[in-house]
Amino acid sequence: MTYDMVIRGGTVVTAADVARCDVAVRDGRIAALGEDLAGAVADGGRVVDAAGKLVLPGGIDSHCHIEQLSASGFMTADDFWSATVSAAFGGTTTVIPFAAQHRGQSLRTVVEEYHDRAGPKAVIDYAFHLIISDATPQVLGQELPGLIRDGYTSFKVYMTYELLRLDDYSLLNVLALARREGAMVMVHAENHEMIQWLTDRLLEAGNYQAKFHAISHAALAEGEATGRVISLSELMDVPILVVHVSTERAAVAIREARDRGLRVYGETCPQYFFLTAEDLDLHGAEGTKFCCSPPPRDEADHEAMWRGVVNDTFQVVSSDHAPYRFDSSGKLAHGPDPDFKHVANGIPGIEVRLPLLFSEGVGTGRIDLQRFVELSSTNAARLYGLEDRKGSIKVGADADLAIWDPDLEVTISIDMLHDNMDYTPYEGRRVKGWPVFVTSRGRVVVEDGELKVERGSGEFLPCELPRLAEPLGQSVREMDPGRNFGARLMPDREAS
Amino acid sequence: MTYDMVIRGGTVVTAADVARCDVAVRDGRIAALGEDLAGAVADGGRVVDAAGKLVLPGGIDSHCHIEQLSASGFMTADDFWSATVSAAFGGTTTVIPFAAQHRGQSLRTVVEEYHDRAGPKAVIDYAFHLIISDATPQVLGQELPGLIRDGYTSFKVYMTYELLRLDDYSLLNVLALARREGAMVMVHAENHEMIQWLTDRLLEAGNYQAKFHAISHAALAEGEATGRVISLSELMDVPILVVHVSTERAAVAIREARDRGLRVYGETCPQYFFLTAEDLDLHGAEGTKFCCSPPPRDEADHEAMWRGVVNDTFQVVSSDHAPYRFDSSGKLAHGPDPDFKHVANGIPGIEVRLPLLFSEGVGTGRIDLQRFVELSSTNAARLYGLEDRKGSIKVGADADLAIWDPDLEVTISIDMLHDNMDYTPYEGRRVKGWPVFVTSRGRVVVEDGELKVERGSGEFLPCELPRLAEPLGQSVREMDPGRNFGARLMPDREAS
Amino acid sequence: MTYDMVIRGGTVVTAADVARCDVAVRDGRIAALGEDLAGAVADGGRVVDAAGKLVLPGGIDSHCHIEQLSASGFMTADDFWSATVSAAFGGTTTVIPFAAQHRGQSLRTVVEEYHDRAGPKAVIDYAFHLIISDATPQVLGQELPGLIRDGYTSFKVYMTYELLRLDDYSLLNVLALARREGAMVMVHAENHEMIQWLTDRLLEAGNYQAKFHAISHAALAEGEATGRVISLSELMDVPILVVHVSTERAAVAIREARDRGLRVYGETCPQYFFLTAEDLDLHGAEGTKFCCSPPPRDEADHEAMWRGVVNDTFQVVSSDHAPYRFDSSGKLAHGPDPDFKHVANGIPGIEVRLPLLFSEGVGTGRIDLQRFVELSSTNAARLYGLEDRKGSIKVGADADLAIWDPDLEVTISIDMLHDNMDYTPYEGRRVKGWPVFVTSRGRVVVEDGELKVERGSGEFLPCELPRLAEPLGQSVREMDPGRNFGARLMPDREAS
Amino acid sequence: MTYDMVIRGGTVVTAADVARCDVAVRDGRIAALGEDLAGAVADGGRVVDAAGKLVLPGGIDSHCHIEQLSASGFMTADDFWSATVSAAFGGTTTVIPFAAQHRGQSLRTVVEEYHDRAGPKAVIDYAFHLIISDATPQVLGQELPGLIRDGYTSFKVYMTYELLRLDDYSLLNVLALARREGAMVMVHAENHEMIQWLTDRLLEAGNYQAKFHAISHAALAEGEATGRVISLSELMDVPILVVHVSTERAAVAIREARDRGLRVYGETCPQYFFLTAEDLDLHGAEGTKFCCSPPPRDEADHEAMWRGVVNDTFQVVSSDHAPYRFDSSGKLAHGPDPDFKHVANGIPGIEVRLPLLFSEGVGTGRIDLQRFVELSSTNAARLYGLEDRKGSIKVGADADLAIWDPDLEVTISIDMLHDNMDYTPYEGRRVKGWPVFVTSRGRVVVEDGELKVERGSGEFLPCELPRLAEPLGQSVREMDPGRNFGARLMPDREAS
Repeated sequence: MTYDMVIRGGTVVTAADVARCDVAVRDGRIAALGEDLAGAVADGGRVVDAAGKLVLPGGIDSHCHIEQLSASGFMTADDFWSATVSAAFGGTTTVIPFAAQHRGQSLRTVVEEYHDRAGPKAVIDYAFHLIISDATPQVLGQELPGLIRDGYTSFKVYMTYELLRLDDYSLLNVLALARREGAMVMVHAENHEMIQWLTDRLLEAGNYQAKFHAISHAALAEGEATGRVISLSELMDVPILVVHVSTERAAVAIREARDRGLRVYGETCPQYFFLTAEDLDLHGAEGTKFCCSPPPRDEADHEAMWRGVVNDTFQVVSSDHAPYRFDSSGKLAHGPDPDFKHVANGIPGIEVRLPLLFSEGVGTGRIDLQRFVELSSTNAARLYGLEDRKGSIKVGADADLAIWDPDLEVTISIDMLHDNMDYTPYEGRRVKGWPVFVTSRGRVVVEDGELKVERGSGEFLPCELPRLAEPLGQSVREMDPGRNFGARLMPDREAS
Repeated sequence: MTYDMVIRGGTVVTAADVARCDVAVRDGRIAALGEDLAGAVADGGRVVDAAGKLVLPGGIDSHCHIEQLSASGFMTADDFWSATVSAAFGGTTTVIPFAAQHRGQSLRTVVEEYHDRAGPKAVIDYAFHLIISDATPQVLGQELPGLIRDGYTSFKVYMTYELLRLDDYSLLNVLALARREGAMVMVHAENHEMIQWLTDRLLEAGNYQAKFHAISHAALAEGEATGRVISLSELMDVPILVVHVSTERAAVAIREARDRGLRVYGETCPQYFFLTAEDLDLHGAEGTKFCCSPPPRDEADHEAMWRGVVNDTFQVVSSDHAPYRFDSSGKLAHGPDPDFKHVANGIPGIEVRLPLLFSEGVGTGRIDLQRFVELSSTNAARLYGLEDRKGSIKVGADADLAIWDPDLEVTISIDMLHDNMDYTPYEGRRVKGWPVFVTSRGRVVVEDGELKVERGSGEFLPCELPRLAEPLGQSVREMDPGRNFGARLMPDREAS
Repeated sequence: MTYDMVIRGGTVVTAADVARCDVAVRDGRIAALGEDLAGAVADGGRVVDAAGKLVLPGGIDSHCHIEQLSASGFMTADDFWSATVSAAFGGTTTVIPFAAQHRGQSLRTVVEEYHDRAGPKAVIDYAFHLIISDATPQVLGQELPGLIRDGYTSFKVYMTYELLRLDDYSLLNVLALARREGAMVMVHAENHEMIQWLTDRLLEAGNYQAKFHAISHAALAEGEATGRVISLSELMDVPILVVHVSTERAAVAIREARDRGLRVYGETCPQYFFLTAEDLDLHGAEGTKFCCSPPPRDEADHEAMWRGVVNDTFQVVSSDHAPYRFDSSGKLAHGPDPDFKHVANGIPGIEVRLPLLFSEGVGTGRIDLQRFVELSSTNAARLYGLEDRKGSIKVGADADLAIWDPDLEVTISIDMLHDNMDYTPYEGRRVKGWPVFVTSRGRVVVEDGELKVERGSGEFLPCELPRLAEPLGQSVREMDPGRNFGARLMPDREAS
Repeated sequence: MTYDMVIRGGTVVTAADVARCDVAVRDGRIAALGEDLAGAVADGGRVVDAAGKLVLPGGIDSHCHIEQLSASGFMTADDFWSATVSAAFGGTTTVIPFAAQHRGQSLRTVVEEYHDRAGPKAVIDYAFHLIISDATPQVLGQELPGLIRDGYTSFKVYMTYELLRLDDYSLLNVLALARREGAMVMVHAENHEMIQWLTDRLLEAGNYQAKFHAISHAALAEGEATGRVISLSELMDVPILVVHVSTERAAVAIREARDRGLRVYGETCPQYFFLTAEDLDLHGAEGTKFCCSPPPRDEADHEAMWRGVVNDTFQVVSSDHAPYRFDSSGKLAHGPDPDFKHVANGIPGIEVRLPLLFSEGVGTGRIDLQRFVELSSTNAARLYGLEDRKGSIKVGADADLAIWDPDLEVTISIDMLHDNMDYTPYEGRRVKGWPVFVTSRGRVVVEDGELKVERGSGEFLPCELPRLAEPLGQSVREMDPGRNFGARLMPDREAS
């Protein structure tokens, strides 16, 4: 029994455990964890020294926009090459971007198109969430079941954005389908009409600058929509995952739902720990660099996000990487002084997600190493049906590993990043801890600060259905007899 | 100084006090409360003996549908004659029904039409709430401000019903106007699309009977919409009153809003204390007699309603009288075995509202006499701008009085009621306590079981703006700095 | 029919109503409220003009320490003369101070002693709460039932203070007795051992100044004890009133109990709206002027107190007047630089209670006039069994009236106050609204800034049992079947 | 590189992962996890086939009473031999019983005594929690710090039981010490005086049977004390673990504390999922078999316990094994018809803990395998400083393994159990899933239904300080500025 590679002497971390041991790789998978495995390395194999280092599962960035044309017509600055290279340099080895349907499009066509984009360029493995903006009977009844069987088991729906949003009736249709098929529904939860009303009033009054973007996307709009979609999912007795939560109101709504035993999951992102609405209030159009939806909030919300990470309101910390350059290809497409409604919505962050969370989470003692792994990798694998291959360091899983130097201090700067952006919202921020060696299926991707793999060497990952415990099942139905009528109307979820 | 009438020796109750004293009336108003006033009765005046009886302010039924054509084309069984006669026999001396706009109609025209209906028939005084189903700029910008000045200071909006409902954007427009003008907004809060979705699924499956009406109007739909409209009102920093609350979820949402200091008010109705969804599950079409929206719920919700009455979640108990006969003019308009979607929605209750609440509220010790008066009369006067004339027994107010025999036991039956209905949902229910003598502006309306006034002797009451304390004002804005953006966009409410 | 006095043309306010009318007095009671009553004034009677003024029920200060020797041996600076004079000048016409048992004393003896003190000096009417510090079988079984029948129907118990506090077992004994007899239990809720522990640690470290008093009485100690005594009362199914609440934690505990339908009542005091812990941090011993328990807190707690006043967490605002001079008779009894543990605990406020609440409550729009009356007078009368005579302006009640000039601006200063103190914690504070004419049982007490009555003209008020609605009764027992075991062990409360 | 034993082909579960792999053992520790390791077994080594089976970390029973003399003078029926044998047959490989101080005893002496009991008899490894019933300065200041350094890093305190309980002042002393030393405090949280009061009243009335035990230990008493000790720990900013939670009230208190970011942990036990107060209501003294404290509650509480397991209110499910036989050595020591106050308090369960949780938790889908491992083993290791050696299947940890047959159906009966009891409260209950092969440090303990190790072959485990993340630290202090005064008085926790 020999191994292709052995990572020797590191501190190996999973969502449960910290162990000092070697990690042995064979045929791209983790073949063994053990003491003194280096001797069993094959001829031509390699021993990597990880003494004094952490060996973590590669991160999974389960919310990122790559080579995606937005409904408003903006193409992200990153394609599958630059985005996956950037991800890898930040310790991420799996991305799950979106295959985004525009209204009128066939989902199947959309998926094919995104495969065409990703296949030749990605350097790490990838799966796809579907964005459903046109929940027609054809899409839900004909296309989706087949796509789910083919490994597209999660989809995102929007409660806001004129060209994307689904009304409550359509959301119920999507949730009903998810229930029947066992798929996972991700929700962008903001009340569209509140935002629209505020936007109209602001623009009428000539308040067009970036800072008014944050005002138009009121915290109340996010809190309200989060509460609403939780009610919809409760009616349907189906899990949902509320993405990119930014505000205490929404966090509390999720927390309370979870306390009641509902299968409501939550995700937040680094921008909601680090940036504030005040960042949007810069001279000229500089503030547009910080325009994303939901927008950065305030210090109290930062604390609420940390609390949510600690008390398990949030299971996932993703980047919501949505890179638009600060030029006419992106933020300034509508001119040098655009109104906030016409600014490309999104900020980059795929490479810095893990170092930011590590430094401010683990480094301050707010979370321990296991929780860091859970938030950044393991939970995403479990929620999106990748747990057999990704998200942990266990025998049989893909050898997607990141060796971290926990003491490496880095000052974040656009110059050092590998995405295709011309700015980073974290410019100048100092962090401690950074991945220095990264593998994907046993292939060395990053070493000594250099990329070691070819374009297109990443592979598509078909997702299985998530295997969720069913706390809700009996308990809530029994707790609340006669009230949860929706579920009763539906055939029971079938075994997958 | 002489009086036209003196009510002698009764126990006089207000929302604050219980006093043994005489009540003296002059020129239709209460001229004095005092000891031994009977000697001052004018020649030709009258002394009414109330010894052993309660003297209460006449009830205000601030939610009732009278001579109203519903959006679906059903005319209520009661016109202003039968409804006001029935109200009076139940101890109610003021009604505030709706002047209901259908889409496309001018509000001013609607108001005139309802005046034409009420003027010649009503036997007690009346005001009007406006129902706004078409929140056009014309309606909001041109008509409403003038109507508010003319005494139509409250309006009801619907979050459900295809032909009535306003979307969130329109609700915000209405709330903004209410904020600017100081008017009161009443909200029918149910999530339209949840109900529609459940209805479609139920009917597809052939589940058309009345009991499925209760299932389609899920408790979750009411809870969700209540939470949503509270968020909208919080954004706008404007009071709202959530009407006919039926379920614990909605009550808790209101309670929590009030705990935070928001000016959110709540109303419930006798049907939500006494009837259950099981009442809809009767043979044939009998269940349609109990179809109203929201539907009757269950015992746990009954307890929640009582709790809400006690802990001031609810300020008002109204009837939501919506009388449709159990024949082809009403419940059976679509045949003898209609599907629930086509059943006229509503139940009668204008005459029994007060006796039911008195018997089960005061009689059991859940509430005291003062709270009964507050819930049934005083609060409605205050919330709808009638407090100078109605809702209490105070010098200067209209002499709208009801002498109650607290020991009179009555078995409710359709035969004894004075509305134009052919059934009562409370048939056979036994109550203790009933009004035996009723005046309106000093005119005896009911005495010895007989009506003593002429058709059309009731008068229209123009409403003032409600004079609400402003707990919310400073406190919430300070509590939640920088978050309640909506209010900031608005000019401050002007002094009326 | 003639009257002794008529107050003409004022705006008469009760907890429910605002009316423009005359108030007629005969034989010390309110004989009539009406229009144009001045003509009926008797020969030698008097007509008082109240045009442009408010006519309010005289305040009830249901929490004040008068001529009381504290367990630590401090005698209050005010006796029944100075305290009641001061109260009257501030618009208060009834006081309910404490007859305070020291351990080992017979309650009956204590009561007699306080009668001896009050009788010759009080200028307004008074009742007594009993302080029970020695809950022996003799006291509870023999003395209390008789005292309750004699009109001492409320008693206060302490959870802290070495010489006063009752342990939980004794509290349960007191609550059981209160349940059986129908009496009202007031609770000083602070966790004794937390305070003691913090005090010991602070003094060990040499932190003896007044500001450490606030630290030793941690907000957590008040929150904890409030939660605990609510649990005890819930076990026993008996009402309690938590006095002088100062902190958000305690307010929330009361609010939640009330939301569940428990008969838990709350009281707060002006110091908790206006003073902060920073006031204790003055040079020298100046900070001791602000030492009371619980101590003043912070701005967030001020907001919580206002919220509690608005959302009915609190039913009563009292003064907790506990006057100790800033000299060797009081604050400095242990020298010019005392440690906080040996500072007489308490601050004066009997005269300014109503003007402070009026100015900052009504004047800012946080509460309306009716709520002001309710908080300052009516509710105390109802909770302590005085509602037939005091607390409102109703026919038959004692003519205890305060005519307020709502526009009178006053700068509070020790010089203008009528108590026996040498400082006021509100020195220099400007308020708008002050009582200018005060009657007690129809006798003019204050007019033109002068006292018009003799020492000892006040009378003792035997209290009845409070007549509380019983929301808890059925509902909680039914909501929580099988869990509230304490109540079941007890014989049902007997009819009084 | 060879191994002493390889467990081949099982499904290996940790708190994070499920993997199909072999587990290799060398020198008592897990040397490797990998594919196809069986070939590397040493001569004389052994390969154990686990195909179709689960390989779980041996359970940790962190709450059990073994060979303990209660304060009331009852010796448990199990000594370290029978208890550890019984534990092993149920899949548990580590026990953490109590070294229980009686008042007046030196803790050091107590520890030595328990070592004398355990050393010669235990067949699996063991650590000790200390029970502190006499929190003298000598004990806290002199003995405890040394004992903590020697590996006794957790201690349990009681809020009830006359001979054990600490008052709040002593609890604060213990918490302050725990904070300074970094130790873990376990709390038995019930309000002593509520229980005592109810007990006195019950016995006075002749209600002595077992069922009144459940009434005397009211749910309110547990809820109150849980809330109180959370307040104490919050004051001191130190973690606590509330043990054997039985009731929804207490669970909610813990949940809310955790939601706020406090480091409050919770434990529950199988009896609170499966038994009810009705079990105590059996003829004769049979009900005493179910007497434990807190007592079994009701179905609603069962649901609350499951919810707490799902929403992470509870981190640990232990047995609280406290075995007293149904004879004169135990339950009937005070005769055949004892009053509940004199019944030995406790029920057995060390052997059935894991099968019950597995069958009803994993088998019903309420929890998944990883959560089962976490609750039954991993979390206890982490909370009590054993994580380097126990609680997971990771390289370097002790080879404490349990091979489970997930399909084995077993009917629980006293005859099949290995403790020294004469009854089980779960007699006749059917479960699915049972451990069939158990190792401790690589030694086979149970195989083919037989015990394979010698008396005394278990070893003592000195515990390290728990390595807890510090979510509370910054966040709560920042959230609640100026309020958490206790913590500020204390020197900061030193690095261990």
